[in-house]
Amino acid sequence: MKDKTDLLFGFHSVYEALRAGKRTFSGILVSKKRTGERMEKIEALAKERGIKVEMVDSLILDKMTEFSNHQGIAARTSFFPVKSAMDVVDRIGPDGRPCFILVMENIEDPHNLGALIRTAISAGVEFILIPKDRSAGPSSTVSRTSAGAMEHADIYMITNTAALLRALKEKGVWVFGLDADGDRSLFDADLKGPVALVIGGENKGVRPLVKKECDFLLSIPNKSRINSLNASVAGGIAMYEALRQRNGIPE
Amino acid sequence: MKDKTDLLFGFHSVYEALRAGKRTFSGILVSKKRTGERMEKIEALAKERGIKVEMVDSLILDKMTEFSNHQGIAARTSFFPVKSAMDVVDRIGPDGRPCFILVMENIEDPHNLGALIRTAISAGVEFILIPKDRSAGPSSTVSRTSAGAMEHADIYMITNTAALLRALKEKGVWVFGLDADGDRSLFDADLKGPVALVIGGENKGVRPLVKKECDFLLSIPNKSRINSLNASVAGGIAMYEALRQRNGIPE
Repeated sequence: MKDKTDLLFGFHSVYEALRAGKRTFSGILVSKKRTGERMEKIEALAKERGIKVEMVDSLILDKMTEFSNHQGIAARTSFFPVKSAMDVVDRIGPDGRPCFILVMENIEDPHNLGALIRTAISAGVEFILIPKDRSAGPSSTVSRTSAGAMEHADIYMITNTAALLRALKEKGVWVFGLDADGDRSLFDADLKGPVALVIGGENKGVRPLVKKECDFLLSIPNKSRINSLNASVAGGIAMYEALRQRNGIPE
Repeated sequence: MKDKTDLLFGFHSVYEALRAGKRTFSGILVSKKRTGERMEKIEALAKERGIKVEMVDSLILDKMTEFSNHQGIAARTSFFPVKSAMDVVDRIGPDGRPCFILVMENIEDPHNLGALIRTAISAGVEFILIPKDRSAGPSSTVSRTSAGAMEHADIYMITNTAALLRALKEKGVWVFGLDADGDRSLFDADLKGPVALVIGGENKGVRPLVKKECDFLLSIPNKSRINSLNASVAGGIAMYEALRQRNGIPE
């Protein structure tokens, strides 16, 4: 049986979903054991939106969430709404206008995807793009690992990453792929114009077909020879280097 | 019963521990089901070091690791050796000499600690300092979440963080605390000299007593009003901004 509703749980996920207003709620369940300011904030928001809040035994939440760390709160909602990545192409003017796009290639771990979305929102990324296949999607786990940040994001799904990058380049966007073997340092790249940052998956990085469409392949300097960076940390460093340059912050 | 040995498992942890040579191995267990190039690398290294490798049923590893993702390999070893943070103070010359120190304050999640150690090694941090209490320690979980990078690190334990920071300042080191309410942007700070970066815990950040000892409190710009960054991502951005400046990489 495939559910037609999503199950959100954990305080930040439910609270930010309520605030963002992108999902339809069919109901909220709160553990009888949980009271306090945080739950009151959720109850007040739910009341405002006309959403039913039911007090239940904590065990019911344990079962629903398969004994995850639900923090005493869960909600049945519609799935997170996504858009098509081709909409992003349509929204870019003929000059590429200064835009900041994140393309995630095959991020498999929902914890990494959540952390990357959370960072993208803080770094001022305008468009977050995820492939439809071969990647974690905007699931309730990702919402939770993004500390609810995902609920506020506009997320665009890609059908064909190579074709999408070609369309972006035609609009004047510069495509930068992060790659451990990239021949240019991240810190030597000019990220001030319209840019799309492509971040590869945890294991295989950016796929060859997608690499071919990148204008530049950037590597993050590594002082050790023993390891690489975690995908969400590498993405964070790259997004913030772009933000630093775009803000014209002095040295 | 408290074990006197540590239990490492997962390929990277065991392999890097063997390569780094900081632990004494009492034995390595490999699942009969696992063969291939990776296991051969471990067996060859173990042979070189005179360490016994035993082929066992995978279920034995499942039980030993409490059904964690052991990847078919486990090792009984001595605990990871640590040093005293006061040794770091002793090693700094009277001019503070350009040194790069990371002080982790109350990082509770071993996954964050592992990611921070992994990043520190890549970013060229020379001294990694962790409080003895109120913090995750250099456990086998942290080794695993650092993808084995921890095995190559020199880790120094702090008894009293405020006293340590005072001692570092007397040696000419500048102490920068990362703080969401910091009055200066990370990107406006001069991180080229002898620096200690202080990274706070996931929930409470840098404690007031420790904040008081910081020369500067730096915040990472945030374009959203809805969330903060994950501790390991924030630490990665700060360490790499320091590396960028210290390498004299042009704008």
